[in-house]
Amino acid sequence: MPRKTVVIGGGAAGLGAAGGIKAVDPDAEVIVYTQFEDVAYSPCGIPYVHGGEIESFDKLILAGKQAYVDAGIDVHYETEVTAIDTAAKTVAVAGEGAVRYDRLVIATGFDYADPGVPGSDLDGLYYVKNIRRAAEWDKVIADTKRAVVVEASPLGVEMVTALAHRGIETHLIDPNPYPLAAMADPDIMAPVEESWRELGVHLHFNTTLEAFLGDGGRLRALKTSSGEIEAELAVVATHKTPNNRLASAAGIKLGSTGGIVVDDHMKTSAPDVWAAGDATEIPHGLTGVPLQGLTGSHAYAQGKVAGTNAGGGDRAYRAVYVPWGTPAGKWVIGGASFGEATATALGIPYVLGVAEGISRARYYPGVKKVKVKLLAEPGSLRLIGAQMVGGGEGIKERADFLAQAIRFGMTLHDLATMENVYSPAIGALNEPIVVAAQNGLADLAKKA
Amino acid sequence: MPRKTVVIGGGAAGLGAAGGIKAVDPDAEVIVYTQFEDVAYSPCGIPYVHGGEIESFDKLILAGKQAYVDAGIDVHYETEVTAIDTAAKTVAVAGEGAVRYDRLVIATGFDYADPGVPGSDLDGLYYVKNIRRAAEWDKVIADTKRAVVVEASPLGVEMVTALAHRGIETHLIDPNPYPLAAMADPDIMAPVEESWRELGVHLHFNTTLEAFLGDGGRLRALKTSSGEIEAELAVVATHKTPNNRLASAAGIKLGSTGGIVVDDHMKTSAPDVWAAGDATEIPHGLTGVPLQGLTGSHAYAQGKVAGTNAGGGDRAYRAVYVPWGTPAGKWVIGGASFGEATATALGIPYVLGVAEGISRARYYPGVKKVKVKLLAEPGSLRLIGAQMVGGGEGIKERADFLAQAIRFGMTLHDLATMENVYSPAIGALNEPIVVAAQNGLADLAKKA
Repeated sequence: MPRKTVVIGGGAAGLGAAGGIKAVDPDAEVIVYTQFEDVAYSPCGIPYVHGGEIESFDKLILAGKQAYVDAGIDVHYETEVTAIDTAAKTVAVAGEGAVRYDRLVIATGFDYADPGVPGSDLDGLYYVKNIRRAAEWDKVIADTKRAVVVEASPLGVEMVTALAHRGIETHLIDPNPYPLAAMADPDIMAPVEESWRELGVHLHFNTTLEAFLGDGGRLRALKTSSGEIEAELAVVATHKTPNNRLASAAGIKLGSTGGIVVDDHMKTSAPDVWAAGDATEIPHGLTGVPLQGLTGSHAYAQGKVAGTNAGGGDRAYRAVYVPWGTPAGKWVIGGASFGEATATALGIPYVLGVAEGISRARYYPGVKKVKVKLLAEPGSLRLIGAQMVGGGEGIKERADFLAQAIRFGMTLHDLATMENVYSPAIGALNEPIVVAAQNGLADLAKKA
Repeated sequence: MPRKTVVIGGGAAGLGAAGGIKAVDPDAEVIVYTQFEDVAYSPCGIPYVHGGEIESFDKLILAGKQAYVDAGIDVHYETEVTAIDTAAKTVAVAGEGAVRYDRLVIATGFDYADPGVPGSDLDGLYYVKNIRRAAEWDKVIADTKRAVVVEASPLGVEMVTALAHRGIETHLIDPNPYPLAAMADPDIMAPVEESWRELGVHLHFNTTLEAFLGDGGRLRALKTSSGEIEAELAVVATHKTPNNRLASAAGIKLGSTGGIVVDDHMKTSAPDVWAAGDATEIPHGLTGVPLQGLTGSHAYAQGKVAGTNAGGGDRAYRAVYVPWGTPAGKWVIGGASFGEATATALGIPYVLGVAEGISRARYYPGVKKVKVKLLAEPGSLRLIGAQMVGGGEGIKERADFLAQAIRFGMTLHDLATMENVYSPAIGALNEPIVVAAQNGLADLAKKA
């Protein structure tokens, strides 16, 4: 009899898992439960449709429903799983009753942190997540004159830019002194703030939300520690929290972030139960600090690993060094591992190498600034983190590289002596990463 | 008494050396001899001025003459060094007589290989090198209706695209079956050839030059193994050969390529004589095969190392894994170390991982193809080479990374499990390098 594997969740992790199972065990019966109407679209693209960069939500659809039927994956849409019984090895499914599994993958994703203030039930509060809701909200956005984005999280940063591009009077409120403070450094974000101001965005930092204020059940204004801001729309972009309700109720072990604890095979504390994606927490490769809410790329890769193992294969998920990147205002920001702010918060000592480089030959049209900041462990000078801000070109590829450099223990010496492509239209004589490493070494030599 | 260091050559290697000396020994007397009117411009930009992408030759000037005066570097312009006497530690300088040195750096650069056919003395043959000559030739190009580029070398590839952009009927002749055959693979160059055809370029492969044919001392046509091609202009882009005349006459050891042999400190066989740049040969990091004619970035870095050591410091030049990249037609090509063609020629066995990936989310405007081909050592699966062709974004940064990956012995497993940034506007869910590695492993698993 084919093995029956149940996957809870139809996002990147859940679908990665379903594919992973089928890859190692083509005969396995694979059922995916999702509470939504669709799977296989890119939620990460939603802010860019709102911003007008992508012309329609249809573009975000990656595969039709038939693709999963053809792959032998049985997706149950708009179907809620209400409980897991790890002893009986069943899940309780609304409308289906108890469904037996041989193997289970939990990929229940995230929720936005509850803003925890009065007025959360008003019309006009938008939590960006589901593509069908996004298409409805896009009509609301079309008629919106004033909007507030609550918190400069990664999604908040994207939505601020999107609403400003849309010509809406856009406000951003955030309790920290600068945007994306949980991951980026202030000097990296400074040009982003400047470019938002150029777009007419109103920035309210060191500002906490106190209430959503309504009028006839509809949002009228946001009450904040810096005063009232009138707005018809609030994009609530609070940080992501793991959706751990089912796992928690089933007694599966959770970690300090609330994420499901998994081993290096994405296995949970329960027998025959794996987990992947935003519902889990993953230790940082250098510090072991649990991380929660990584990217869709991580979720997909974790899903693949969970599915491979749930399907009877054997694949480890490698430690994460977290390359990241995103457009922000007119810039692209990115990095790997952590920056100065996080290192300082964690009490991790570091030495710095910084360079303001360029993306092409200085004289070639379209040349853009590329600022690179490298953090290295004192003594060994091994790379432990990096942050960048630039005009766009190559930030993502450099972030990928720097995460791998951290994984492989590359030092400032290794990066200072790295070869680089020089071709005027695509690369400058001196690669900014190399110059940053050389500057770091020169600073150390001066101090010595 | 300050140490007197003489540098022969005012290109990237020579100026890198001059700066390297001053960095470790600010009191050193540093004299640079150049036969040209200028130093400190970017010759690599010349094809892009011809192509119209860069508006004028002035843009290529990096620093004025005063910058070198200020730095304490004494540049003798339009001054030829005619001999080196390593026993007497002097150089013979036209107009100056014998000049004593304590330390010498030879950075005499390259010459284009002599095409070795009749008619080489005709007007209308353009060897791209010097910025003042380039400005004069640009006026000739403006009046040119038909041009032939001789050999699809890196410069030839750039000049074909430049002349085609300029609206000139452009022909390319090359003895090999496809362009850039000394370094790139045919599948990488196929889209480039197609884009040249779209630009109206006439491609003549498997074609050797037999003579330049003249009329009243001016070029009228090129006689080739495939017939005559009428043209008023021939860009002679034959391969680079080391300009080793002075070193050779001085009895300094040359290698199999004709390049000056240097140790890992860029020291030649003669006492107190270093060399750097295109005049030298450098062993390939994996194979030890001597390489000659690398990029301006290599020349500059080698010059820095030679200068640092000549100035009394101690710096090794790391083995080269040769990241490279250049626009070609409407594509950007690049890679690191070698591709299949070179590996096969050298008798080096390899396994392949290939992917046709994308530069951004599939649905994001401006998304471009990125083909990645990885060569790994059978058994260990260590990366030994890579080639790419793509729409532009990130080819240079990926080439830099892949060269470093080779240096650090990364395997297909390491690359298959690499994390990557996913953000729709700047990176796809799956990084093409990762997919190529995964495909390579999947192919091996199928064969096993």
